[in-house]
Amino acid sequence: MDGRGEDGAGGVGDVGGEAVKVRRKRMPRAERERQMLDAAVRTFGQRGYRAASMDEIAELAGVSKPLVYLYLNSKEELFTACIRREAAALTRAVRGAVAPGPADRQLWDGLRAFFEHTGRHPDAWAVLHSQARTVGEPFAAEVNALRAELVAFVTALLAAAAREAHQDPSLPDREVAGLAHALVGAAESLAGWANAEPDVSAREAAATLMNFAWAGLGDLMEGRRWSPPS
Amino acid sequence: MDGRGEDGAGGVGDVGGEAVKVRRKRMPRAERERQMLDAAVRTFGQRGYRAASMDEIAELAGVSKPLVYLYLNSKEELFTACIRREAAALTRAVRGAVAPGPADRQLWDGLRAFFEHTGRHPDAWAVLHSQARTVGEPFAAEVNALRAELVAFVTALLAAAAREAHQDPSLPDREVAGLAHALVGAAESLAGWANAEPDVSAREAAATLMNFAWAGLGDLMEGRRWSPPS
Repeated sequence: MDGRGEDGAGGVGDVGGEAVKVRRKRMPRAERERQMLDAAVRTFGQRGYRAASMDEIAELAGVSKPLVYLYLNSKEELFTACIRREAAALTRAVRGAVAPGPADRQLWDGLRAFFEHTGRHPDAWAVLHSQARTVGEPFAAEVNALRAELVAFVTALLAAAAREAHQDPSLPDREVAGLAHALVGAAESLAGWANAEPDVSAREAAATLMNFAWAGLGDLMEGRRWSPPS
Repeated sequence: MDGRGEDGAGGVGDVGGEAVKVRRKRMPRAERERQMLDAAVRTFGQRGYRAASMDEIAELAGVSKPLVYLYLNSKEELFTACIRREAAALTRAVRGAVAPGPADRQLWDGLRAFFEHTGRHPDAWAVLHSQARTVGEPFAAEVNALRAELVAFVTALLAAAAREAHQDPSLPDREVAGLAHALVGAAESLAGWANAEPDVSAREAAATLMNFAWAGLGDLMEGRRWSPPS
């Protein structure tokens, strides 16, 4: 998927030119690396970063531990590679689901994709949402970059919807940014809830959030505000 | 505020009976401990757990470093004491602001109290929301307890509002729990945004979230659902 070749060029860890010439090279490098990352995401997501061992990850991936180090360098770099891959997969899933159209349709499609992805990959979501923040600063920064990208995407979506609704006075940029933060925070929180509760489907989680948010956002787009009690 | 006496009974760190008899005892123990915690919250909130030094905290509190260790035992216990104190202060602020009344009024009062408190105590909020999760597991668990308490409070509020609206079919418990998770996640996310943006007032943050959420929740309470596009 990320098109890395057998020669190791552009690999996640810089393993050095000649070190790549390992003996049993039946499988392309990209494929082997994918297996290691799959095993790592599963192990980190289920056990947590600190408790997860490189032995366990290597065994689950069906490779030797030295080979994991050869490809990914260290536990830290392996974890970083997991975060980056899973963050990219999540944003790709959400962006890919949203086509031009009415704002509520876009939001609904985006939310369903978000909850489908987080529900189908609970270990990846645990790595991104819980593990990466709990472990420490450099990893938290990686996840904040993902969060900033999702917020920017939602901000652009809401700003376009507000412009489309041609309100005057229009929804100020600052409020749109605030609304995007609220929506992303709500979605993150609900994803954790949906994965912890038995039998909450992606559709149900997305519908809960649409019911929570859309009528509110929808009113706002049309210029109808909630007003504080006197 | 927490009524600990000079004798150290019930103190945060178990410092042992005789160790408490320090020389310069002009100030009651509770007062001195409060000063240490104030200094610790400020330092942890601004520098992060790892970068913060006990020297710095002692200096800011105007006491010797041994005295900080005597009272709070270790950096870990000091940090835990900060989390517990600030979590209790935040839930107290929110609960104290909500009086019986219509659901939107309760929500508005609770949200204003939440954003006023997090805005007035940005270091405390950084400790609770960012630092505690970033540092590691035992601290993250402390913060999850706070989160669970806020979610339970909001769940009870929404469930009462839904019952009051006498809808049939009523809002299922599970959906109410989902909505509460969405609201708490949105509020957490907005508090970070409001503290990072210049000049976002507590009232503005609370109004943004009410506009985002209430018309949506309000419609739901009355049995009007958002429906997916066909």
